[in-house]
Amino acid sequence: MNRESRIQWKGPSWDLRVYPVTRPDGTVLEKGYVDHPGAVVLVPLLGDDVVMLRQYRFSIDETILELPAGTREREENWLVCAQRELREETGYRASSFISLGHVWSAPGYSDEVMAIYLATGLSRDPLKADFDEIIELQPHPLPELVEMATDGRLRDGKSIIGILRAADFLRHHSPSASDSAS
Amino acid sequence: MNRESRIQWKGPSWDLRVYPVTRPDGTVLEKGYVDHPGAVVLVPLLGDDVVMLRQYRFSIDETILELPAGTREREENWLVCAQRELREETGYRASSFISLGHVWSAPGYSDEVMAIYLATGLSRDPLKADFDEIIELQPHPLPELVEMATDGRLRDGKSIIGILRAADFLRHHSPSASDSAS
Repeated sequence: MNRESRIQWKGPSWDLRVYPVTRPDGTVLEKGYVDHPGAVVLVPLLGDDVVMLRQYRFSIDETILELPAGTREREENWLVCAQRELREETGYRASSFISLGHVWSAPGYSDEVMAIYLATGLSRDPLKADFDEIIELQPHPLPELVEMATDGRLRDGKSIIGILRAADFLRHHSPSASDSAS
Repeated sequence: MNRESRIQWKGPSWDLRVYPVTRPDGTVLEKGYVDHPGAVVLVPLLGDDVVMLRQYRFSIDETILELPAGTREREENWLVCAQRELREETGYRASSFISLGHVWSAPGYSDEVMAIYLATGLSRDPLKADFDEIIELQPHPLPELVEMATDGRLRDGKSIIGILRAADFLRHHSPSASDSAS
């Protein structure tokens, strides 16, 4: 969040902030950005499959293939958020979350940071999902998803990055290797 | 854009739209999303280098390394936008734009589509940049950028995807190969 801005609209999970920009002729333009608490993106490994979702997205009025992900609550610990979203969206809990990095989704108009985790050691432990989420689980083999991320069939930004980073990690480590936390 | 929404805030390049969601108890929640005209993301090849930018981003109050990119005007042709943004941000025009796909940056709260292009055959032909953009060119060898996209040093989502797709394309084609358009 940039302090030289003010809230224009308060939403249930993020706000719209606006800030003035002075043009060369002295007139002022008001620009906006999304003030976002951040999100987790999960790559849940179940055998050789990644548990993907098909989820309806209102903004584009389409059902798309994507990784499980969710918005963090403002003061929520990132790993608590990761476990909660995994259980809500897939019905699994993970015994280990391995960080695959932090990425800005759209820094031109949003301060959202996406924390990406490889989630391993899955066992069934569902949590009730958000009432307005329409989600269908759709596991896919990781090599097929790498092809889809590369050739353009996968079109969701966070999912492309999560899949390619997970595949690279697994080429160099076993899923039970270092850097894990739970 | 989803028709079952209304404009809450009109910005210079995109709008905030809101829509009602009814909770199970009958009360109504108002959710929002960014109604965006789309953007181009460019991977400009200059010899063995990709012309990257260091650019200040207000939302996160940081200067970050990223690919040249820019918002489309509402009725603008995508390739016209690609050439315009390339000239404005890097001072080069390209003789060829090769599509590397279309990606949603943040479909949970934005309908932005990013059209990614490999830009080849560069020659100097600057266009005046937007008055409020502070940009420094910073060419990097493509193999170094692939490492940075994979190991987490590159943190801008569109740039990670653009670099990895460009590297895959160039492994399979020469830059002057098929699918080009200008």
